[in-house]
Amino acid sequence: MNETINTLYDHVTVREYSNREVSDETLDAILKAACSGSTMGNMQLFSIIVTRDEEMKRKMAPYHFNQQQATQAPVILTFCADFRRFNRYCEFRDADTTAYSNLQSYHWAVIDALIAAQNACVAAESLGLGLCWLGTITYNVDQFADILQLPQHVVPVACITMGYPAVTPPLTQKLPWKGLVHQEIYHDYDKEAIDRLYAEKEASEETKQILKENQLPNLAQVFTQRRYTKADNEHFAEVLRDFLEKQGFTV
Amino acid sequence: MNETINTLYDHVTVREYSNREVSDETLDAILKAACSGSTMGNMQLFSIIVTRDEEMKRKMAPYHFNQQQATQAPVILTFCADFRRFNRYCEFRDADTTAYSNLQSYHWAVIDALIAAQNACVAAESLGLGLCWLGTITYNVDQFADILQLPQHVVPVACITMGYPAVTPPLTQKLPWKGLVHQEIYHDYDKEAIDRLYAEKEASEETKQILKENQLPNLAQVFTQRRYTKADNEHFAEVLRDFLEKQGFTV
Repeated sequence: MNETINTLYDHVTVREYSNREVSDETLDAILKAACSGSTMGNMQLFSIIVTRDEEMKRKMAPYHFNQQQATQAPVILTFCADFRRFNRYCEFRDADTTAYSNLQSYHWAVIDALIAAQNACVAAESLGLGLCWLGTITYNVDQFADILQLPQHVVPVACITMGYPAVTPPLTQKLPWKGLVHQEIYHDYDKEAIDRLYAEKEASEETKQILKENQLPNLAQVFTQRRYTKADNEHFAEVLRDFLEKQGFTV
Repeated sequence: MNETINTLYDHVTVREYSNREVSDETLDAILKAACSGSTMGNMQLFSIIVTRDEEMKRKMAPYHFNQQQATQAPVILTFCADFRRFNRYCEFRDADTTAYSNLQSYHWAVIDALIAAQNACVAAESLGLGLCWLGTITYNVDQFADILQLPQHVVPVACITMGYPAVTPPLTQKLPWKGLVHQEIYHDYDKEAIDRLYAEKEASEETKQILKENQLPNLAQVFTQRRYTKADNEHFAEVLRDFLEKQGFTV
């Protein structure tokens, strides 16, 4: 339909980057696009930390579980929910600095940070870069906060590695998009709906390979028993909750 | 630099829509783009509720505080953090259905929902539509959940009104984007940095008008005393926390 729609449809996760440098001009365009999106009450409740220094990448790598893209990518952008700047603005203008230390305010800042993050991704891909989201940023929040020197009311919520692709993988197999869309009200999923929605994915060669490697009968069990187990999730939920409190957001 | 970057730079909030209908073809392109983004572990932890029915708009309007765009927009998209579908998949495949009932898992689903929401926005704007985010969706979560019939593990996190613009406002005045970007580590904001960052905004005619209307000396106090007060924020924080627990996410 147009170039932008094609960019969005063609999104893939790129984990291997070429040696081609990302120019300052290109990075500036991505960052400016990130800062051009919608924001709660025009408060702009986010900050972006740019990592290009090799030493900084090495420091963060263990907390990204040493995924290769965490050290191999030329640029890493960490998007933070940030009420610090706005609170400082309030402080220096004799306004209440305690109004935004709650879960609702944190939620607004998370939304702002993610709007910015996705804008950066779309901008980067439109300029020929490839990228990968590192979910690990929400696991080891306290370690990243130490390394990036995040003050009160700043919480990392998204981390994206970027560079020119060395290898561009094929499109990821996703559920049929109409299965994620509901008209007027939520239409709950019964067994038949789930079977239909997952049919293509479950029948794929990729899935068969994963099941073989994991010696498990289906993908759901690969997720719950190997990739994202209850024990891990509950542990990292506790880390996140403690960190939010430490940063000054009452949960 | 290219059409996509221009679309991102040119974003404005559009609250008044023309009578021009949004075709099914256009809406499908937007929804497909929404479903094409990155997602945690390819779990696709979101759902989109499409509102076009006038009666549904009227039901929701009071909880959007009767903002005109909540009834006047031809299309409203509500993006939900959704672990329901994945949990049902687990249930029908004899996998653990209790692994994702925690704050960390909720966080992943919020991220997925917002990636989808911002993709939808970029797609819509590239096709000539205008849009407005309704922050009210995170205030009155329980009422929206009733109206949209959201089951366990589904939480509305973004709501966007869309249509062809009747009036396209000028670009919103934002902070200089470089003030939101930090190189390698977070550089905290002292008074001088805050003064510099907010100087242009504080000197604008728009700000002067707002201060005159509110009879207050600065924008910070307009936010803390009028727009988003501590009492309101803490009330809606409690509503949100209670709702997350009700939906099965332990906070």
